[in-house]
Order: sequence, then C-alpha cells, then structure tokens
Amino acid sequence: MYLSKLFIPITKDLPAEAKIKSHQLMLRTGMIKQSSAGIYSWLPLGFKVMKKIEQIVREEQNAVGAQEMLMPTIQSSEIWKESGRYEDYGEEMLRIKDRQGREMLYGPTNEELITDIFRSSVKSYKSLPQILYHIQWKFRDEIRPRFGVMRCKEFFMKDAYSFDLSDEEAKKSYNKMFYSYLKTFNRIGLKAIPMSADTGPIGGDLSHEFIILAETGESKIYADKNIFEINLNQYEFNDTSLKKMREDFTKIYAVTDEKYKEEEFNQKVKKENQMFTKGIEVGHIFYFSDKYSKPMNCLIDDKDGKKTSVKMGSYGIGVSRLVGAIIEANYNNDVMKWPRNISPFDIVILPSISKNNRKNFEKAEKIYKELKKQNIDVLLDDVDENMSNKFKKHDLIGVPYQIIVGSKSEEDNFEFKELNSKSEILTLDKIIKKIKN
Amino acid sequence: MYLSKLFIPITKDLPAEAKIKSHQLMLRTGMIKQSSAGIYSWLPLGFKVMKKIEQIVREEQNAVGAQEMLMPTIQSSEIWKESGRYEDYGEEMLRIKDRQGREMLYGPTNEELITDIFRSSVKSYKSLPQILYHIQWKFRDEIRPRFGVMRCKEFFMKDAYSFDLSDEEAKKSYNKMFYSYLKTFNRIGLKAIPMSADTGPIGGDLSHEFIILAETGESKIYADKNIFEINLNQYEFNDTSLKKMREDFTKIYAVTDEKYKEEEFNQKVKKENQMFTKGIEVGHIFYFSDKYSKPMNCLIDDKDGKKTSVKMGSYGIGVSRLVGAIIEANYNNDVMKWPRNISPFDIVILPSISKNNRKNFEKAEKIYKELKKQNIDVLLDDVDENMSNKFKKHDLIGVPYQIIVGSKSEEDNFEFKELNSKSEILTLDKIIKKIKN
Repeated sequence: MYLSKLFIPITKDLPAEAKIKSHQLMLRTGMIKQSSAGIYSWLPLGFKVMKKIEQIVREEQNAVGAQEMLMPTIQSSEIWKESGRYEDYGEEMLRIKDRQGREMLYGPTNEELITDIFRSSVKSYKSLPQILYHIQWKFRDEIRPRFGVMRCKEFFMKDAYSFDLSDEEAKKSYNKMFYSYLKTFNRIGLKAIPMSADTGPIGGDLSHEFIILAETGESKIYADKNIFEINLNQYEFNDTSLKKMREDFTKIYAVTDEKYKEEEFNQKVKKENQMFTKGIEVGHIFYFSDKYSKPMNCLIDDKDGKKTSVKMGSYGIGVSRLVGAIIEANYNNDVMKWPRNISPFDIVILPSISKNNRKNFEKAEKIYKELKKQNIDVLLDDVDENMSNKFKKHDLIGVPYQIIVGSKSEEDNFEFKELNSKSEILTLDKIIKKIKN
Repeated sequence: MYLSKLFIPITKDLPAEAKIKSHQLMLRTGMIKQSSAGIYSWLPLGFKVMKKIEQIVREEQNAVGAQEMLMPTIQSSEIWKESGRYEDYGEEMLRIKDRQGREMLYGPTNEELITDIFRSSVKSYKSLPQILYHIQWKFRDEIRPRFGVMRCKEFFMKDAYSFDLSDEEAKKSYNKMFYSYLKTFNRIGLKAIPMSADTGPIGGDLSHEFIILAETGESKIYADKNIFEINLNQYEFNDTSLKKMREDFTKIYAVTDEKYKEEEFNQKVKKENQMFTKGIEVGHIFYFSDKYSKPMNCLIDDKDGKKTSVKMGSYGIGVSRLVGAIIEANYNNDVMKWPRNISPFDIVILPSISKNNRKNFEKAEKIYKELKKQNIDVLLDDVDENMSNKFKKHDLIGVPYQIIVGSKSEEDNFEFKELNSKSEILTLDKIIKKIKN
C-alpha cells in the first residue's frame, strides 16, 4: 500500500477531547473517527489492527475446542425477563421499541440468548461439554463515555459460554478458557496477570480478571513479580495440567487496590519481588453454575435420565478495547511501537524524496515490489515531505520496522531501523529474514 | 471436526413457519435459529458458510483497490436530517432514543455516515479516487419479515462507497465494482446477471442489480442466454477494458418482468436464445453523483483550487442473504450441494458403524487424521445411526464430497462420492488430489 492512497486522515493537532494517550493517538493517526458520543467508526488503519487482534482471539478460542457462531445485536426483552435481569440491568441497557411496539434491546452481553439457544438444541449429557463463542458488537449506553475506545458505547467483544453437566466438569472448561486467555495475550505481546475478581452483574462465585500492565492504567496493582516467571509452555492441554496451571498462577500474590492490604502484601511477598504498578482490564471470566439455566429452565438429561440444570460460565475479551489498551502499554516517549503480530503493516519504506531527484523513490519502489513478492505487507511512504516530519509521523503510526532509503543506503545495502532501536545497514535478504522470523 | 461434537441441532420435522426451501433447510440443519421475528442467530454450520462468503467478497473488494473499514451500527439522526432522508426513510428505519433522549437509529445503509467521514478527512482531488467499504450488520424494521435470512430484519451486508472528482471519473469506479461483483459471484459458483435497475430510496440515475438464477426466485427474468457466454477473463483491469466489459454485458437483453415487453423480447432475442427463468437479487450498485455530497457539503478542491461536491456511488452485496440465495439455487430434488469454495467442510467421512464391529470407525479415524494433516477441513460422522439415515442427513448438510467407509472400501481403496454423482472407488491419494484441485 502506498501511503498517499491509504485512507488515513492524520491530524497534527492534539485533539482537545482526548484525555488519555491511546485516544489521542488513535484520533491523530486516523485509526478511528467519532460519529457520535461514545460511538466510533474504525478507519482502515485502526480496522486492520482490530481485525488482527480478533483473528488471534479466534484462533486461541478454536484451539481449546470452542465453536464460533454469531448471535444478533438486537434481542427480545422476553428472555431478559425470564432471567430477571431486564429490570436489574439499569439504564446502561439500550432499550428499543420496534414499529409494532415490541420491547427489544441492543445486547450488552449474551447469557440469556445463548441459554435460550442451548435449551432448545441440546437435551443430553452426551453432547457435553460444549463451549460456544461469538465476536460481535455490543452496546452499553454509558452516561459519560470517555477515553475513546476504552470506554465507549458500541464495542466489539468476544464472549464465550461453557456448558457442563456438573460443577466439577464446569471448572475444567473454566481452566481451558483461563489457558486460552493467557495464550491469547502472550501472542499479542502483552503481559497479562490473572486476578481473582468480583462477579458484578454477571453473577456467580468464581471469577478472574486479566489485567495488562500500563503506567496509565485505571487499576492499581500490587503483585509478586514471580508471576511473570511462569512459563505457559510447561502445561499440557489436559484437565490435570490445566488445573495445576490455574493453581500455579493464583497462588502467587496479585491484587488490585480494592483487595490490597499492606500488611498482607509485606507478609506474602519478599521486598525484592514486590511490584506496584497500574493496569487495564482486558478480559474477564465467570463461573456462575445454574444462575441462568435454572430460571430459564435449560435442562439436561444426566446419565440416569434425571433432568438437571446445565452448569454455565461466560468468558469475555474486549477486542476493540484491547486496541486502546495495547496503545496505553506500548506508546511511550512519543513513540508507538505495535507488537509485530498485530501491527497494521509488517514494515514501512521511507524514501527521502526530492523533486529533482527521483532515485530514492525508484529504489523504494523496487524494494516495495520485492517485499510484496515475499508476501510481506509493506507500506511505502510516497508523501513529499521532509524526513524529519516523516519520522515523527511514523513514530505515531507505529509500524515496528522501517527501511530508510536515503544517503546511507548504497547498492544493495539499506538502512534498517526497528523503532526504539538504532538503525543498521543490512542487505534486503537479511531484512526479509528479520521480518519473517 | 467430529459430528457428535459439532453444535448442529438437526431437526427432522419440516418447520411450519418456513415457506421456502432455503429457510426450511437452514432450520433443519441447524444453520440458524430464530431469536425473535426476523432476527436470527447463526449457529456454527451457517456461520462457517457466511464467513466464507464474506471472505470472498472481501478479497474481491480489495482486489479492485477498495479499502476496508468499519462503521458503527448505531448512528445519530443528525446526518440523516442533513441529507433529508430522516423523514423520507419511513418506518423501516429502527429509530432509537438513548438514555439522554438523543435520536439515534440502527443504520439501514451508510451513505450519510460515510459522507460525514469523508468530508472531514479529504480535501483535495489528489486523494481521489477512493473506494471505501465495510461489512457490517444492518437493520430494517420489516413489518412482515419472512423467507428466513432472505428477508429478515438484522442482516449482514457489504456496502462500498466511491468518491471521485467528476462524473466521468466516477463511472470508472462504477465499472470497477461491476467487475468485482461478477468476479465475486463467479467464485461462489453462481451465475449472476447484471440488469439495469431502478434506484429507489438510494437515488441517482445509474444502477444495476445482480441477479442469480433460481427456480424459486422472486423476480421473473427474460434474457438472452448469450449473456452467460461472456468470459470475464478477457477483460483487463484498466478503465478502457472495464468500460468495454460493462458495454458487452449491458447490450445483451436481460430484464425483470417490470421492464419486460414481449414484442421487444422477440425482436431483440432469437427464439433459440430466449431464456425465461426466475432469479434472486444478491447485489445492487448505484451511481448518484452529488445526491448526498451536495446537501451535506462534502467538498473537494479541484486542480484549479475550486471547490466542488465529490461524486459518489454506493455498492451493496447482501452477505447473509446470499446464504439463502445460494441454497435456493443449489438445493434441488432433496439434495443440497454447496459450491466447494463456500462449503462448511471440504469433505465428510461416513463410516458404517455397528456396535460389535469397530473396524470401519477405526478406518474412518485413520483417514480423518490423514486428511487433517493435509490441511483438509474434514467432518467425520461418528453418530451411531444407519447408513440410509446418514445419507439423507448429509444430502441436507450438503458437503459436496463424501468418503463412505463400508463394505465397498478395501485396503487402501475407498468409496468416494460427489453429491449428485455416482460413487467410485479411489485411493486416498487420488481423493486428496480431487479435493485440493
């Protein structure tokens, strides 16, 4: 893609309404555009990043045996009345009347709808366990939407639902998702800490939040830094190993300020391992047993032919929110560097362009074609602007690798730069190897 | 995937509410489940097919230089008041008030929102032409939703928007989309006829519908069958060739019954080339020049620095609707056969299972592993049920290729069947070659 052709409305002004750095960056680099309070359009640059995150989330859901489906955004109020949440949910639920006066709503979450689908589809324990998920737009009518995509009204979320015969079996599903979440955040290049959490309006008695570290995060975090030493690869995908994994993670001290007690922290964590930082919640998992299946009469025949309420959990990752959270974690000292797995482009070519000399630009086009041939997703900055401005701009766009075509490039050697590092002179072959690695 | 693990609630009863065969099939094979009138959940089987169609649409949009983005489902009423359509659109628009009393709506289409984005992002002719698209859920509050996903309330649609400096340039964008649409439908295995059409509530003076042939279609079609003789590969992706392409297609007689005149048909089309059939609209493209850009003040500086309203077109493909349309076109004589590019699985293995003899099942599992290794997406029917029922069931699920593991399979030779054809005995290598071809 040539930058001049990319629909990327970059602005130089710092948007006044944006209070946190992810919101500022996303507006400045044209990743998003607000269409009304708390509602955004995702322009090509932001869209590409979000899609890459979505795909990683999907692959790691599929890897633990979850099946993808898609529920609609608009739901009938009836099932919410069955569960009892129609009144409870409060004003954050966007309530709608259709032309025939029927009470509808824009789904803020899907426990009721998936329970409705399940109760009419599955009757026997033989079909269990099941984990179903979808990645769909949700809506919460926030009274004060803020922080860009971090706290907006219409948001993109992966939510999964597990179905088991017993509480004991259900915990196994819970552990699978626990594992899947850690794998997901690892692949995105994030350090995520699972923390036991309150269950809030979803309900239940077992819950974990996944929090990534970011200096600007909303939650204060007190933890033993040994939590980052646990190697996920040591666990196998079976019930025993995954049980041990959750125990290993949860026995290490890590709490938000709500649960923090200084005395306990000092007692449980050695001074040199104490970590105090901030974080952002990017995932939340719940086990709530028969909280929905019981009132909604979602019954399963067990081995003895006896009917029992199916045991359920739900598991959310905020996909659109993650885009903001990743920026909060990776945008420092005026430089944004995307983790390579989700960068909007693999590499950018920055030729030094002057009107009287087309040499650098022609060289850049040659490199562009070569990289394209290698299936590398490359951006060529063909805009006629001085190099100092170009560098500043690409410090914001955040593609992690650059080829600078200027005075230092000679013959088949090019100036290659990884953001936040010094540049080096490399052959194109070596650059391609680095990118593909 | 083992069939017993797949979340596929198959029903044997013919659903009473379903009047057309696509709706019947989708309910019977658990592709969809109605959640409320005209609103459906897409269960794993239906979801997979829809995602494959979406991906083909996406690739063919990208191939003509359109850029993907994503607009929200909920829009503010303000921009619709600017264009004048807020009142005009009628009751099919789902109108919403948020908790602060603001007038919002669930987008039925996106001309206004994309114009709003464009006017604040692009100022100069230098950034033109541009084609932007998104694939997003839309809502029309149908008073009588029917025919399943063919005429439902919440539907999945690709809509693209082109921006050009002049009417002449804009026609070039129109031709690119015309080409992209024909390529898209070809890849899905559909015979699509472009027909000049009325513009309806979108407006403008140039418009084509793309109609696929299906005996059960809603539109009557009168056409010269030579329209299927045009080979799309003869055209190159440049303005001159694409102009000729559109001329070649549109000079061949093809109309719906609204425009049909018997005398004209007989005069323009030789008796032996006359085709009378039925069809289903699956795409619609519009050129409407400055119909939205003028009232919404979306201005571009031309080469002389003069401001002019940008010239726009819009281009829709009903992605969820296509799933139903494809079934209407391909489900005949109680056999559904998915076009291979969008089949939910590449192949299905049907072992003859009996309780006392596990041989066939073990053989089936061996084949399954081998096909998986070859990256073939294979379904193994491990359900304990007689072969006659299995065949009937798979006549509906519609995976085009089967390996039948029963009495006719010996050593390394297996019974291979393509739906609607006779079975043959082949080695696994030959079967793999057929699938991958």
